[in-house]
Amino acid sequence: MADSPKPVRDIAETARDVKAGSFRMASLSESLRNGALRAIAKSLLENGEAIFAANREDLSAGAESGLAEPLMKRLKFDRQKLRDSVKGIEDLIGLPDPLFRTAFVRQLDEGLVLRRVTCPIGVIGVIFESRPDALVQIASLCLKSGNCAILKGGSEAAATNRELFRLIRDAGLGAGLPESFLTLVETRADIGALMGCHESIDLLIPRGSNEFVRHIMDHSSIPVMGHSDGICHIYADKSADPGKAIPVIRDAKTQYVAVCNAVECLLVHRDIAESLLPAVHADLTRLDVTLRGCPETLKIIPAIPAEEGDFGREYLDYTMAVKVVDGIDEAIGHINRFGSHHTDCIITEDAEAAERFMLMVDSAGVYQNCSTRFADGFRYGFGAEVGVSTGKLHARGPVGLDGLVTYKYRLYGGGHVVADYAEGRRSFNFRDL
Amino acid sequence: MADSPKPVRDIAETARDVKAGSFRMASLSESLRNGALRAIAKSLLENGEAIFAANREDLSAGAESGLAEPLMKRLKFDRQKLRDSVKGIEDLIGLPDPLFRTAFVRQLDEGLVLRRVTCPIGVIGVIFESRPDALVQIASLCLKSGNCAILKGGSEAAATNRELFRLIRDAGLGAGLPESFLTLVETRADIGALMGCHESIDLLIPRGSNEFVRHIMDHSSIPVMGHSDGICHIYADKSADPGKAIPVIRDAKTQYVAVCNAVECLLVHRDIAESLLPAVHADLTRLDVTLRGCPETLKIIPAIPAEEGDFGREYLDYTMAVKVVDGIDEAIGHINRFGSHHTDCIITEDAEAAERFMLMVDSAGVYQNCSTRFADGFRYGFGAEVGVSTGKLHARGPVGLDGLVTYKYRLYGGGHVVADYAEGRRSFNFRDL
Repeated sequence: MADSPKPVRDIAETARDVKAGSFRMASLSESLRNGALRAIAKSLLENGEAIFAANREDLSAGAESGLAEPLMKRLKFDRQKLRDSVKGIEDLIGLPDPLFRTAFVRQLDEGLVLRRVTCPIGVIGVIFESRPDALVQIASLCLKSGNCAILKGGSEAAATNRELFRLIRDAGLGAGLPESFLTLVETRADIGALMGCHESIDLLIPRGSNEFVRHIMDHSSIPVMGHSDGICHIYADKSADPGKAIPVIRDAKTQYVAVCNAVECLLVHRDIAESLLPAVHADLTRLDVTLRGCPETLKIIPAIPAEEGDFGREYLDYTMAVKVVDGIDEAIGHINRFGSHHTDCIITEDAEAAERFMLMVDSAGVYQNCSTRFADGFRYGFGAEVGVSTGKLHARGPVGLDGLVTYKYRLYGGGHVVADYAEGRRSFNFRDL
Repeated sequence: MADSPKPVRDIAETARDVKAGSFRMASLSESLRNGALRAIAKSLLENGEAIFAANREDLSAGAESGLAEPLMKRLKFDRQKLRDSVKGIEDLIGLPDPLFRTAFVRQLDEGLVLRRVTCPIGVIGVIFESRPDALVQIASLCLKSGNCAILKGGSEAAATNRELFRLIRDAGLGAGLPESFLTLVETRADIGALMGCHESIDLLIPRGSNEFVRHIMDHSSIPVMGHSDGICHIYADKSADPGKAIPVIRDAKTQYVAVCNAVECLLVHRDIAESLLPAVHADLTRLDVTLRGCPETLKIIPAIPAEEGDFGREYLDYTMAVKVVDGIDEAIGHINRFGSHHTDCIITEDAEAAERFMLMVDSAGVYQNCSTRFADGFRYGFGAEVGVSTGKLHARGPVGLDGLVTYKYRLYGGGHVVADYAEGRRSFNFRDL
């Protein structure tokens, strides 16, 4: 591989170079960026065999080192993954440009016009574990939104990542993107170095296990977008319709257990516990779900006694904690204390109760009578998903392309000075245009 | 002062209590919050004498300990400051509610409706230096936006802050606010403790010197909204109109020197340096401005030779660095390297140059032909200013009430489950309502 990129030695220096190049990246037209995405999709399709060959290297190294089956599965990059990746890029090309969008235009005074316009965030550091398709996805999201990306992939996927990176980079440069648009760093030690680049990197997006994301969040002064735990709750209120409660609980718990928007804890209003819990138990044990119940629950249905720590635990498995509560306020208090501010649902026919729940539950998603599994950018109609954020600032919940942009205030004048206004010779005359 | 609040001992515990109370705060109606603001304004007006008496205590303690004149001035809370504070609260009451605003309503499918609705951030920690009027302002901004505030004031203003706090708190509780809406912490050691409360405090707003703000930003994993340096630039392009350049430079440098949006560095295109610089020199030396010039500048006008560090320095005084540049790209590069991403201006008659400058200068404010001093929430027509942010995420530039809110996704269903969509029994049918 004579044309593979030379290894990056000093991350801080590289990041500074990327930052310096990011300003040109921010000025590129939509058509240039979409053209580059088209060239990248074409190159990936045409070079499938080279990618699969690199992936076989990683797979056999993984098999040799005894990588677990789920990891091997995520590591695999086959024709289907290639098709999905290219489809993702094509969808992205069709989405509206997130840049240069004007939130408002306001005349401050005659000839003095303020515009708030979206622009890229700048340099985004992405740290991801084994899945090589994540590289394609995040590189194209960053490109669409005019950001430079510094990628740090997992060592298990090193050969695949290197090949994907080479193809994307070459196609992008050929389409007129600046050198800085995409950078790959490879050694394990680089994560710490990346986390220290707060002068050059504007945002970190970690993708991987909870522990991994939590570690990045706790140890970097660079803003982090992501989520660690997904501890979602369903609260079945006094007025819950069992015809909605049972299927929603079933779906939220069992439709896909290993994800952040699966439900981990069911809270049931005391008044309906004796009628609802046996039905929930019958429905879920049929699907091999283990219930861990509070003492009140155990009086009604057979379950494993919940221990300390079972509430506020992310099972990511066919297990759910169950607790009987005195009412909506106890449910809200429990969720705010033990949840992870991701997505929580109330099952109720009472609109006032739903409103109270939605106002007071401090989560990115507050749902009535539907499965927590809907918490997803594609299901929200965003067209592309950057990730899910449990932070409250900037972007919250499922994040679409909008989460990768910020804004500037542009002020156009004709020699206007503040002294004229401070000294009463002129006065502001605000008018939204 | 028998009725003064009891001293706070354990900050972490207090912050947890405030957090637990913040959910009720988030559910209060606009009329309750505005009613509380009205009660607070009334109480402050009726208890002016008690405030002035407390302020006299602080002032004599300050005089005894030899507090510098500017600090004494900021410490003073007299009838004029009281009038201004009350006026600020009245203006705030008149502003539209930043809460419960719907950014979009989207039908995902029949009977499944997604709403993105604004809500308070939660608990805001505010750390401010000597000015007691800042306490009134920030407490009322937080209240208007449904946030709980934990305030840490400067020790010089302890008596005034305590009296203001007591009046605001009593009036607020009387108007039906929850206990948690406002907390005052007093000892110096508490700053470190506050910075560690990332489980309970959602946002920190520091107000004070650059060093102080920088310290908070570098040492807390809680998101910080604010700005440390304001190193603003004006670039006079080849096509600059001197009739705009001279008054704009004069205003940006001299209208008020001790503020973050004053200009600190002038960049001049080589082609106009010989004509523009003598006029700038004549205009500014008349106003006692000292110029620190690059070698090229010194060939044209008398100035102090600029030393290393003079570019990228925040003078906050009648001093300005001056540099001759080869063109717009050098100017943009210089600003992105030495500026503080606050507000930078191009003086030009060339619309294309202005566009290039605005696209590529990485600052919250990018201006054409007007003074950098316009970078201010009131001058932008926001009605209230929370502060200026040089961060790029969440809120950038002058921040109005909108900067104190975030949003939730509310999803209303009728028993909808994801399995139906995953298994093809139903399909999404996105429609913005």
